[in-house]
Amino acid sequence: MTEISFARGVPAPDCLPVEEIGECAQAVLLRAERDTIQYGPSGGFPPLRDWLAERHGVEPDSIFVSNGSLQGLVFLATHLLRENKRVLVEAPTYDRPLKILRGLGAEITGIPMDEDGLDPDALERELKDRRPAFLYTIPTFQNPSGRTLSLERRKHVLELAERHDFLVVEDDPYGLVRFEGDPLASMFELAPPGRVAYSSSFSKTVAPGLRVGYLVLTPELAAAVEAIAVSTYVSPVIFTEAIVWEFLRRGLLEPNLERVSGLLRLRRDAMIEALERDFPEEARWNRPEGGYFLWLDLPVGVEASDLLAQAEPAGVTFVNGEDFFAGPGGEGSARLAYSFASPAEIEDGIGRLASVLGGLLLAPPAAV
Amino acid sequence: MTEISFARGVPAPDCLPVEEIGECAQAVLLRAERDTIQYGPSGGFPPLRDWLAERHGVEPDSIFVSNGSLQGLVFLATHLLRENKRVLVEAPTYDRPLKILRGLGAEITGIPMDEDGLDPDALERELKDRRPAFLYTIPTFQNPSGRTLSLERRKHVLELAERHDFLVVEDDPYGLVRFEGDPLASMFELAPPGRVAYSSSFSKTVAPGLRVGYLVLTPELAAAVEAIAVSTYVSPVIFTEAIVWEFLRRGLLEPNLERVSGLLRLRRDAMIEALERDFPEEARWNRPEGGYFLWLDLPVGVEASDLLAQAEPAGVTFVNGEDFFAGPGGEGSARLAYSFASPAEIEDGIGRLASVLGGLLLAPPAAV
Repeated sequence: MTEISFARGVPAPDCLPVEEIGECAQAVLLRAERDTIQYGPSGGFPPLRDWLAERHGVEPDSIFVSNGSLQGLVFLATHLLRENKRVLVEAPTYDRPLKILRGLGAEITGIPMDEDGLDPDALERELKDRRPAFLYTIPTFQNPSGRTLSLERRKHVLELAERHDFLVVEDDPYGLVRFEGDPLASMFELAPPGRVAYSSSFSKTVAPGLRVGYLVLTPELAAAVEAIAVSTYVSPVIFTEAIVWEFLRRGLLEPNLERVSGLLRLRRDAMIEALERDFPEEARWNRPEGGYFLWLDLPVGVEASDLLAQAEPAGVTFVNGEDFFAGPGGEGSARLAYSFASPAEIEDGIGRLASVLGGLLLAPPAAV
Repeated sequence: MTEISFARGVPAPDCLPVEEIGECAQAVLLRAERDTIQYGPSGGFPPLRDWLAERHGVEPDSIFVSNGSLQGLVFLATHLLRENKRVLVEAPTYDRPLKILRGLGAEITGIPMDEDGLDPDALERELKDRRPAFLYTIPTFQNPSGRTLSLERRKHVLELAERHDFLVVEDDPYGLVRFEGDPLASMFELAPPGRVAYSSSFSKTVAPGLRVGYLVLTPELAAAVEAIAVSTYVSPVIFTEAIVWEFLRRGLLEPNLERVSGLLRLRRDAMIEALERDFPEEARWNRPEGGYFLWLDLPVGVEASDLLAQAEPAGVTFVNGEDFFAGPGGEGSARLAYSFASPAEIEDGIGRLASVLGGLLLAPPAAV
């Protein structure tokens, strides 16, 4: 029996442009750019910083490139939490930042979401209390929910951020892997300068193993983050940053996005079709227009932990919704990643999951 | 006027095996190893872990590979300082770990050194107090001093570590770039299992820009460190780890070490000759048998900060000895890196430094 993972938020092997990356690596080394295998600037490979600065309409000293975007978020949060430990996050939110923030001693409050993303009214209620150090949000194709914050709400959240003077940390690794619908302006684009710290990555648009992520900050914040970086790892991996830059300057990003989005769309469609075919009506799920994940609400009374315990022996995994909440929540929900398995595996896996669920609905586990 | 840096502990461009790394990168990608551009295990590229395990006589689950060895030390120190904040270091010691340890809230005590490395009697006196979480030492071609802990002292320090039950963290990035004399056993090799956590890197033996360093730990410590790593950056840069592994399996390490050591020896010789020719007798320096640095004690009464202030306009930089002490110390000393500048530049730079020093000796800065 094939193991089928809906747990891993990881690109499928066929999404990775192996040949192109090989050519880029070769080109970087054929130009004998010793600088790319030498210690480099702690803020990243200068030509890549320049490219990103131009793309985001800032100066290069506002760009901080790191070994993956999570690493950048760790540095940024380390700096921001020095004075104020209060952080607002979406509920649910990406589990790794939750863990990082806890490790840094943050007091975390989750803001409820619905299909249009985080609820600005609930956010406003939380702001009556104490000013947060920042709001951490993934407004586009959110991890774990696949939800996207509507344009109206983006503006509303930014108004609140202005009025209550807090920083919005916008994590946007999925924005460019949209396979349907029109792109929305990022919160960074909608906000006045300095209001939004923007984080993104080439993990979903080029390849995750190169570990190239970045932050767009104010020059002051970028300098603070860079000071932490230099004490942590001297410099990031300049060689893979040079490969990404070569990929970009050759104009390979756009065709690759088109290809990757197409592959992701096939997978999302396979998952939705299988859910529609096999799952009971009492279950609910969304239909993301991009990204890696959808959010499954199980029929009332079914716990995700019970489903997972029985799905694993049937060779299917996913992540329990509870893992994505700072407090209680998510017990009846699951994050399903459609990014990794093939469409055929997705069909098979959802079928197996539906059988397990059917068993649970017939004979729910005895109450303790 | 050429700027000449004795400040940067960085390999000279001609030390970097650009062509070989290019061939290795190509080979990795020609084998179409998608795994090397995918997210990978948080402990590092498995074949490289296997290679390191064999080299160090441990199981692969004792090996932790990270984006440079400093990053590994940050994770290790984060874990070790959770319960006990006391750390012993050499005085002087590498400035980056000092900064990292301070940032983690460590109570740092410096143990004095002489030409044979840290003084075990001074260490013993410090152990009468409270047990430290660990001793951080760079026993071979130390950064900043270029000194090497004698075999007898290695054994003595390890006896103390056994008797007082503390961990020794041995940082050994320079051990393999020896250009003279016989290799000494590492403390890791001399100690019973679990007593020494060993750290090293391919920055000085292959290339720093690949950012591949590693720790040899107990499996328990490796698991604890890996748990921190996965929350910080998901996985390290697998692609450059695969390149290093390819470099190793092709047998390129030994010839490269020979080449690099030869280049370093020329530089050390150029520096020593220039010092002997140009510097006054009252100055003192050592003659390291490997590594990147030597330690210069200025004539009594001359402050390194004054020398540096006047050397910079003359186009020469070095690092003030004070930067390498947890407490007071180093005011009259300098770390001179001979790794980066060419032999001709070294000769020129030492000459300029001697002129500036001559001026200071004639007209010492007015006392405040």
